[in-house]
Amino acid sequence: MYTVSVRGHMMIAHSFRGELFGPAQRLHGATYVVDVEFSRPDLGDEGVVVDIGRASQAVTSVLHELDFKNLDEDPDFSGKNTTTEFLAKVVFDRVLLRIRSGEVGPGSEKLAGMKVTLHESHIASASYAAAIERS
Amino acid sequence: MYTVSVRGHMMIAHSFRGELFGPAQRLHGATYVVDVEFSRPDLGDEGVVVDIGRASQAVTSVLHELDFKNLDEDPDFSGKNTTTEFLAKVVFDRVLLRIRSGEVGPGSEKLAGMKVTLHESHIASASYAAAIERS
Amino acid sequence: MYTVSVRGHMMIAHSFRGELFGPAQRLHGATYVVDVEFSRPDLGDEGVVVDIGRASQAVTSVLHELDFKNLDEDPDFSGKNTTTEFLAKVVFDRVLLRIRSGEVGPGSEKLAGMKVTLHESHIASASYAAAIERS
Amino acid sequence: MYTVSVRGHMMIAHSFRGELFGPAQRLHGATYVVDVEFSRPDLGDEGVVVDIGRASQAVTSVLHELDFKNLDEDPDFSGKNTTTEFLAKVVFDRVLLRIRSGEVGPGSEKLAGMKVTLHESHIASASYAAAIERS
Amino acid sequence: MYTVSVRGHMMIAHSFRGELFGPAQRLHGATYVVDVEFSRPDLGDEGVVVDIGRASQAVTSVLHELDFKNLDEDPDFSGKNTTTEFLAKVVFDRVLLRIRSGEVGPGSEKLAGMKVTLHESHIASASYAAAIERS
Amino acid sequence: MYTVSVRGHMMIAHSFRGELFGPAQRLHGATYVVDVEFSRPDLGDEGVVVDIGRASQAVTSVLHELDFKNLDEDPDFSGKNTTTEFLAKVVFDRVLLRIRSGEVGPGSEKLAGMKVTLHESHIASASYAAAIERS
Repeated sequence: MYTVSVRGHMMIAHSFRGELFGPAQRLHGATYVVDVEFSRPDLGDEGVVVDIGRASQAVTSVLHELDFKNLDEDPDFSGKNTTTEFLAKVVFDRVLLRIRSGEVGPGSEKLAGMKVTLHESHIASASYAAAIERS
Repeated sequence: MYTVSVRGHMMIAHSFRGELFGPAQRLHGATYVVDVEFSRPDLGDEGVVVDIGRASQAVTSVLHELDFKNLDEDPDFSGKNTTTEFLAKVVFDRVLLRIRSGEVGPGSEKLAGMKVTLHESHIASASYAAAIERS
Repeated sequence: MYTVSVRGHMMIAHSFRGELFGPAQRLHGATYVVDVEFSRPDLGDEGVVVDIGRASQAVTSVLHELDFKNLDEDPDFSGKNTTTEFLAKVVFDRVLLRIRSGEVGPGSEKLAGMKVTLHESHIASASYAAAIERS
Repeated sequence: MYTVSVRGHMMIAHSFRGELFGPAQRLHGATYVVDVEFSRPDLGDEGVVVDIGRASQAVTSVLHELDFKNLDEDPDFSGKNTTTEFLAKVVFDRVLLRIRSGEVGPGSEKLAGMKVTLHESHIASASYAAAIERS
Repeated sequence: MYTVSVRGHMMIAHSFRGELFGPAQRLHGATYVVDVEFSRPDLGDEGVVVDIGRASQAVTSVLHELDFKNLDEDPDFSGKNTTTEFLAKVVFDRVLLRIRSGEVGPGSEKLAGMKVTLHESHIASASYAAAIERS
Repeated sequence: MYTVSVRGHMMIAHSFRGELFGPAQRLHGATYVVDVEFSRPDLGDEGVVVDIGRASQAVTSVLHELDFKNLDEDPDFSGKNTTTEFLAKVVFDRVLLRIRSGEVGPGSEKLAGMKVTLHESHIASASYAAAIERS
């Protein structure tokens, strides 16, 4: 399996509900350094997994929707804790939508899987990985 | 699959037996920067893979048992080479015991797998990964 | 000159005032990975720049005051933009207060300088460095 | 599954053919920081996945073949785009040849898989991973 | 002294002249991950060392001039070895020109110094640092 | 000022004397990832601070003397705590000896300073830096 990975980041505010979260129940924030890995069993004619330029643009566009925001006020996340693992899947789903809409260009229809990792500090990260089902 | 990862470290002395090891047959030491990844197919109500606070405490407690020690004198490792890959499994097994004893709290019974990586320098690391069987 | 460096982190929310800041005028947040470097021209009897345990506790205590907070609501920063460079000096000043109060223990009175670096992402950081004047 | 990983690097020149590549169609270059992971389901008598010294030599020898070269002039890659993902498989195949020739020593015949990752910058990488079939 | 740092990168081909360079006399290439640090003794009204957006644009614009090029064919470097340390000064000088032309905006006239570091691999880097003289 | 930096590592065992050190009074160990920075105000004819190949060999040779050893048994350190900051100066002094003996080759007599940093984990490091006096 071939994989290519691109990195971006976003800086958001949020708070969590539940005693589990201790002081993170207060409004605070995070920088998420985000790695998106695209996997495919073989390479296309040009020798690439995917057009990395268009894939990067798709990732940037997804992160831009969340960047510099207070996620507590985003209706998409109403009633949800926007934990690192939760946000990994949000990024996964939104990049996948762009792949399916054709935004990522030729070859992206052959992608077999994706993994999104959010690094929240030098000691903690979370990820969501899944196969990409044929739509 | 969702994964969360926490990082700790330990600083130990040890020596290896076997010509294979060359100068590492002498008593020497290592800092191991340790990443423990916890995986689970879906998130609980709070939106988390596991209570990261309690998971971190479990990891810290396991590393504390080994930290600042000469592993050559630890009866648990008698007759064993405490290589990086061997120690990755030691950490895996000991964190798993804590999960099974309930120390890591609600949700941890749904963990599907774990991966432990020990970075021994900027150029070398080793890991042990396995599914968590229902006990 | 000898230097020892310890690392911690904090996760805060804040917003900035001024067109200069573009979208960062909105409430957002950041993880700051914080390195505090302590410098001294020679080593004490034990062969250390400073009691690293006590120095780490001082740093942790300073970061704890800011961690998991919305800095916009902290009266200490009223009317200020809590930029990365501004916060580097806040951490510097608060660690210095702890050094001067004796919290960092014997040897810390011989410290010649300190540098505080806040990494806000994989591509940006800011620092504040100064000599420590004899009080 | 146990895994050990070793790191090396190479510095090459090359160019790509295809509009997809934009300015990378010009002759340019890259440092590839290369991680090779060797996996095996259990450890040998010495407690190791593989003789890490010999495995490192095999990786170094493979990277040496490519290092400080203009890959556009290497007949092995004639008519190919030497993209990061393509080169990950080249390194994989060449390390595998050395394993199969016995160069990596006892135990290497039990390796179950390998993953080769090439980091081309702080924001991009590519990898190739596969099971090692019994020859 | 306050410092802010921004990171970019460039991917170039080149060769060196002189026996000193061994195999690097051949045409090869490098990824340079580039950190540019801007220093200033005090902060402006907005609480910043410099408008980081405009400073980043200046750095990006400088790196863009060199990115995806064969430096052996750049008349600016005719008869020169474009070593890592040499290129650190090239980037320094070109960013400084942009500061002096007013491109980096208000506050940049108060910058006291700059340091440019080029990381060429996980084990080697070079930098050029100097005070900024009043023009 | 121009600076070039090379990285190596060593893996040692040792123990410390003094209550200050808590559990580090026991025999334990560390991996030190070592950066040696060489500084010089201008570049030589070849465009380099120093022959990086020979400088790297000098660093490797110094680290080799300490690597895979129990420093408690090294007569050079009798009665000393081999703390990270202490060892930074040991490496500094030994590299300087090699510079003065001519081992690092032409140009090294023009070096103006050196800084040695030992990273002992992902959260702690120490360094020693000094001007190089003309001998």
